[in-house]
Amino acid sequence: MKRRIYLRMKPLHEAREAFLERIPVGGFRGPEEIPAVEACGRVTAAPVFARLSCPRNHLAAMDGYAVRAEDTFGAHPDHPVRLQVGRDAHPVNTGFPLPRGTNSVVMIEDVLELDPQTIQLESPVYPWENVRRVGEDVVATELLFPQNHRLSAYDIGALLAAGVTRVLVRPRPVVSIIPTGRELVEWEEWEKSSSLAEDQIVEFNSFVISAMLRNWGAEPRRWEIVRDDPDELRMAVSSTIEVSDLVIVNAGSSAGSEDMTIGVLEEMGEIIAHGISMMPGKPTILAIVRGKPVVGNPGYPVSAVFCCEQIVKPALERLVGVELPLRQKAKARVTRKIPCRVGLREFVRVRLGEVDGSLMATPLPRGAGSITTLTRADGILEVPENVEGYGEGEEVWVELLRTPEELRKTLVSIGSHDLTLDLINDMLRAKGGGWGLASSNVGSLGGLMAIRKGQAHLAGTHLLDPGTGEYNLPYIERYLKGVPVKLVHLVNREQGLMVAPGNPLGIEKVEDLARPEVRFINRQAGSGTRVLLDFCLEKAGVDPQKIRGYEREEYTHMAVAVAVASGTADAGMGILAAARALGLDFVPIASERYDLVIPERFFHTEGIVALLDVIRSEEFRKAVSELGGYDPSRSGEILL
Amino acid sequence: MKRRIYLRMKPLHEAREAFLERIPVGGFRGPEEIPAVEACGRVTAAPVFARLSCPRNHLAAMDGYAVRAEDTFGAHPDHPVRLQVGRDAHPVNTGFPLPRGTNSVVMIEDVLELDPQTIQLESPVYPWENVRRVGEDVVATELLFPQNHRLSAYDIGALLAAGVTRVLVRPRPVVSIIPTGRELVEWEEWEKSSSLAEDQIVEFNSFVISAMLRNWGAEPRRWEIVRDDPDELRMAVSSTIEVSDLVIVNAGSSAGSEDMTIGVLEEMGEIIAHGISMMPGKPTILAIVRGKPVVGNPGYPVSAVFCCEQIVKPALERLVGVELPLRQKAKARVTRKIPCRVGLREFVRVRLGEVDGSLMATPLPRGAGSITTLTRADGILEVPENVEGYGEGEEVWVELLRTPEELRKTLVSIGSHDLTLDLINDMLRAKGGGWGLASSNVGSLGGLMAIRKGQAHLAGTHLLDPGTGEYNLPYIERYLKGVPVKLVHLVNREQGLMVAPGNPLGIEKVEDLARPEVRFINRQAGSGTRVLLDFCLEKAGVDPQKIRGYEREEYTHMAVAVAVASGTADAGMGILAAARALGLDFVPIASERYDLVIPERFFHTEGIVALLDVIRSEEFRKAVSELGGYDPSRSGEILL
Repeated sequence: MKRRIYLRMKPLHEAREAFLERIPVGGFRGPEEIPAVEACGRVTAAPVFARLSCPRNHLAAMDGYAVRAEDTFGAHPDHPVRLQVGRDAHPVNTGFPLPRGTNSVVMIEDVLELDPQTIQLESPVYPWENVRRVGEDVVATELLFPQNHRLSAYDIGALLAAGVTRVLVRPRPVVSIIPTGRELVEWEEWEKSSSLAEDQIVEFNSFVISAMLRNWGAEPRRWEIVRDDPDELRMAVSSTIEVSDLVIVNAGSSAGSEDMTIGVLEEMGEIIAHGISMMPGKPTILAIVRGKPVVGNPGYPVSAVFCCEQIVKPALERLVGVELPLRQKAKARVTRKIPCRVGLREFVRVRLGEVDGSLMATPLPRGAGSITTLTRADGILEVPENVEGYGEGEEVWVELLRTPEELRKTLVSIGSHDLTLDLINDMLRAKGGGWGLASSNVGSLGGLMAIRKGQAHLAGTHLLDPGTGEYNLPYIERYLKGVPVKLVHLVNREQGLMVAPGNPLGIEKVEDLARPEVRFINRQAGSGTRVLLDFCLEKAGVDPQKIRGYEREEYTHMAVAVAVASGTADAGMGILAAARALGLDFVPIASERYDLVIPERFFHTEGIVALLDVIRSEEFRKAVSELGGYDPSRSGEILL
Repeated sequence: MKRRIYLRMKPLHEAREAFLERIPVGGFRGPEEIPAVEACGRVTAAPVFARLSCPRNHLAAMDGYAVRAEDTFGAHPDHPVRLQVGRDAHPVNTGFPLPRGTNSVVMIEDVLELDPQTIQLESPVYPWENVRRVGEDVVATELLFPQNHRLSAYDIGALLAAGVTRVLVRPRPVVSIIPTGRELVEWEEWEKSSSLAEDQIVEFNSFVISAMLRNWGAEPRRWEIVRDDPDELRMAVSSTIEVSDLVIVNAGSSAGSEDMTIGVLEEMGEIIAHGISMMPGKPTILAIVRGKPVVGNPGYPVSAVFCCEQIVKPALERLVGVELPLRQKAKARVTRKIPCRVGLREFVRVRLGEVDGSLMATPLPRGAGSITTLTRADGILEVPENVEGYGEGEEVWVELLRTPEELRKTLVSIGSHDLTLDLINDMLRAKGGGWGLASSNVGSLGGLMAIRKGQAHLAGTHLLDPGTGEYNLPYIERYLKGVPVKLVHLVNREQGLMVAPGNPLGIEKVEDLARPEVRFINRQAGSGTRVLLDFCLEKAGVDPQKIRGYEREEYTHMAVAVAVASGTADAGMGILAAARALGLDFVPIASERYDLVIPERFFHTEGIVALLDVIRSEEFRKAVSELGGYDPSRSGEILL
C-alpha cells in the first residue's frame, strides 16, 4: 500500500537564486572574436578601445570652400572679399579633409562664384566654423564600450568609425533541448502520414522553446525525441551536456509513473530544486550535472514557457553577463474577480482592452495545458505569493505581450460570439492600418452588461424578446438606460439542432428533445441561443424539466458541437457553421437577427468607422454567404 | 556666375505619406509557404484555420486513475469505495486519453493503492473532473490567426497543436543598400593595409543600416561601393531594383558637386521628395523607380539612421502588412535649454539619468556626423515642427534607447571626467549585476552644481583652493550648503603640460607658456585643471594676458591633447594618460587630489555600495597604476 506525496516545493526566488549562483558570470567558455559588422546583438567580453580618432583629420562639415578664416574678416555686402580659387579658397564637399593652411569652410550658399578662378564673400567666417575637428567624435585609445555591453546596430558604426574591425564577444549560449515522452510524434511524420494514434501528439514544446531562445540571443539545439527510456535519456543528457551551456529536458518533471527525468538527473548530478511554488510550472526540476545547469521542464506547454521565462532566461543573462529587456508594464483594471492561492506565485494570462483610454484586464482560463491561453493573451498578471487574488475593479500592473499601439488599435468586442466576427478581424487586418478586433464570448446579455460597464467598444447580440418577437431593441431599452448606443445590423443567421452525422435518433423538431433517450447539451442562461430555445420550447409546449441535460451548459456554439461530436450528447442548439465545422448534421429551427451594439461615443472613431466599412463591403457579404446559414443582405444597416 | 539654392523641403509627414501610398500593403510579391517551426517573427499572409482539435480526445489532466464518476459517488472516509484496477479504474498519466467508459480522473494523491488490483477512494469525483475535454483549447476549423499577424514563439505551439505544419507568410522584404562615395574603403581592405589615405574613410553606414533592417525582419543585401560614377550608380540601381522590395542609395543626397544620386534617380523614375524638413536627415531623397521605392539616404551616419527609422521602417511595415513595435516612451525633465528651429522636426539625442526616481534628459551634441551621439544616447527627444525648443526643467516625453531597468541601474556621474571613471564602469559591468556608470563631463564646478540640483549620484572633482592649498572641501562648504554629502578619495594624479613629441619648443615650466611663439590651448573656466593652472601661474608670477591662446577653451583633457597633436596648439595642461593616448610628450607640473562627491542619501544604496567595492578592490588599484601618472594607494578613503 502506498500513497504518492506532493513535490517538496521551493519558493521561486529561492530556487532560482540557488540555481543561478552555480552559473559563472560570463559563461563556461572563453570569448570569441568576430567581425564588427556581425556583432549587432552580441555582448562584449572585454572593454573596447578606439584605434582611430574620428574624424581622423579636420573635415569640411558643409559643401563649400575651405578658407583661412582670417582672410574673410571684415567681409560685408558693402565691402565684399574676393578670394582666388586654388590659392586662398579650395572647393570642398562635406566630409573632405581641409587643405593645409585652411581652418574654416564657407557654405556654398554664401558664396558668389564670379568666375572659375574667383569667389566673392559678403560675410566673414570664424576659425573652425563648419569644420569637424580631429577627434571631435572619438579620440584614439578612448573607451568605446565596457565589457558586458550588448552591441546595438548604431554601435557597429562607432566600432568601424573608430577602426575596430573585430571584437571579442561572449559566445552565444548553446542550449540543448531534449524532448521526452512516449506519446510524442515528429511534425514531419504526422505531415507525411496525416494520421495519429489516439494517444499520440505532435511534439511542439521544443520548437516554442527554440524560438524563445533565439529571441534571447541563444543558440537552440534540438535533440531527437527520447521515448521514456531512462538509459536513452541518460545518454542524451550525457552527450549534450559537454557541448552545451545549458540543457533542457522537456518534459517528465512531475511525479507520475513515467516521469523518469528526476531519477536520471539525481543519479547524474545534484538536484537544486524539484518543485517550485509557481503556477504554471510547479513540477520544474533544477539540477547541476557535470558543473552545467540542467532544467527539467514541465510538459504542459504553458508551464514549459513560464519555466523558461522565469529560470532559463535569467540563466542566459548570467551566461553572457548582461540582462535582457523586461516586458513593458502597464496599469489595468481587473474586470472580474481573480482568486489566487496564497503561497504560490501565479502567472495569470489576461486579455487586455483599451476602452475610453484605460486598460481592462480579463483573466483567461488557467489550464497550463492550453497553449491558446498564451496566444490569446495580451498580457500577464504576476500574482505574488502573499496575495490572495484581486477583486473586480482593482488596479494591477500587467506585463504586456502586445505593444501599447496594438492595444490602442484593437476594438474590444464582448458579447455573443459569431464566426463573422473572425471574418471582420481578418478583413480589418488585411487593410494594413493596424486595426484589429478582439472578441470575448460571454453571451448576448453579458455583452450588454459589458457595454454598460464601459468595458467594450461593441457587443454582438441576438436577444429575442418573447413578448414582442422583436430582437435586441427591447433589451437595450431595459438594460442600457442612460447609455446612448447605436444598433447596427450584422447578419441574419440560421439556428438549429446539431446532431450526430446521419441523425441516428431522428431528431426533427424541439419536441424530440424531450424524448427520454435523447441527451441534450444546453447553452448558458443569458445567451441569445438559450433565449431562442426557451422561446421555441414554450411555443411548442415542451416542459424544459423533461429534457435530459437541460441543466448542462456550454458557453459557445463550438463547445456544444464538440459535445455532440464526441458523443457525450445527442443534440444541442447552435448555428449551421458550427455543425459544419465538426461534420455534424443540422436541423434548422429558426432564423434570427444578429446585431452589434455600439456606444454612440465610439461611433465616429477611426476603429469603428473602419469596422463599418468592412461590414458594408461587397467582399464581406460574399465571404459571409460562403460560410452557409447566413443572410448578409442588410449588413451595416443602422437600426437605432 | 551662379548661386546654389537650398533644397525645397517637404514636411516629414507629407513626404512620408506620399511615398508610402505608392507601396502596396502586403508588398510586391506573393506569399511564401514555410514550415510552422520556422515561422516565429514572420507575418501571416492569409488567415490560418485549425486542422485538428486540441485536445483531440478527452485527456487526463492529472496523474491518477480514470474512472466513471458515477462509481465514486458517496465515497467518504467512513464509507470508502473500492475499485478494481483494469475494470473500473485505469492508471493514467497526465495527457493520456481517457479509456472508453470513463469520464473523470482521480488524482494519484487521493488514491490508496491497496494492492495491484485494488484502489480505494475516500471522496467522490465529479463527471469531467481532472479531464481536458476534446476541443477545449482549439476546435478544428476555427480561426487561429488572421492575416497580417506577426507570429510569436507561443504561436508556433498553437500552430502545431492545431495540426498546422506549414503557413503562408509574407516574404521578408529584400532591401538593397548601395554605398556610394569616392572616399569610401571596405573595412577588410583597411584591415589588410592598416593605412588609409587622408581623404579615405571606412564605409560603415551600410552595416549599421543592415543591422537595423535585420532587427526589423527585413533581409539586407549590400551592393559593392559605387565610387561617384553616375553610370555605375545607374547600373547598380537597375540591377538591384528587380530583385529588391526597396533600394537605399547611401549617400549622395545633398546638393554638393559630387551628389549625383538625385540626377540618376530623376532620370530613372519619379522623385516624390528631395529634402525633408527633419533634422538630422534633411537632404533625403524619396523616389519611385520602376514601381519600386528608392530612398536616397544622407551620408552623415546619424542622418542615415533617422532617415531609415522615419522612412524605411514604415515602408517595411507596409510591405509586410503589420506595424513594428515603437520604442517605449518615458517622461523626463530637461536639464538645460534645448533651442530648436521652428519648421523642422528635430530628433535630439539625450543622455538620461534616473536620480531620486525621476529621469533627467541632457541633450548631446547635435552634429549628424557624430555616430557617438547615437551610441552614447539613452533616448531620443522628438521635437515637433511648431515647437521652438524646451527650457530647463521642462517635462518632455522621450523615446528610450535603453530599458527602464538599465536606466535605473546606471549611476549618473556629472563633473570632471577622469579615465578611472571608465575603468569603474567596466569593472561594475564585469560583476554582471547590471550596474553601470554614465559620466558626463562638465568640469569640477559643474559637477558640484549638478549635485546641488539633484541631477547626479556622484561628481568627480579636483578643485584646489588657492587660499588654503586644500582640495575640494572648501568648495563643498561654499557650494553645497544644505546638501549633506560624503567625499570619497579616488586617486592622486599628475597634471602637466602636453607638448608635441620631442618637445620641439623646449617647454619646461609654466613660465614658458608666456613666450610669444608658444600657442597655448586652455581648459574651460570652472574646471579643476584651469584652477590648478591659474594657481601655478600666479605662484610663478606669470600674467595670463601674456599667454597666446589663454582664451581658447576646450572641455576635456582629450580635446586639449587633440589640439596639440594636430598642431593647432603647442601646449596645453592635462593628465599624463591623455598625453600618452595621443603619443605626446608630457612635462609634469603638479600632483592633485581627485575625489568623488556623493550625496549622503545615495551612500548606502546598492549602486554606490557596488561602486565603493570596486574602487577599494586590489584589481582597481592595479589597473589604475598601469595607466601611469596615478597614485591609487588611498582609493576609497572617506574624507568627509
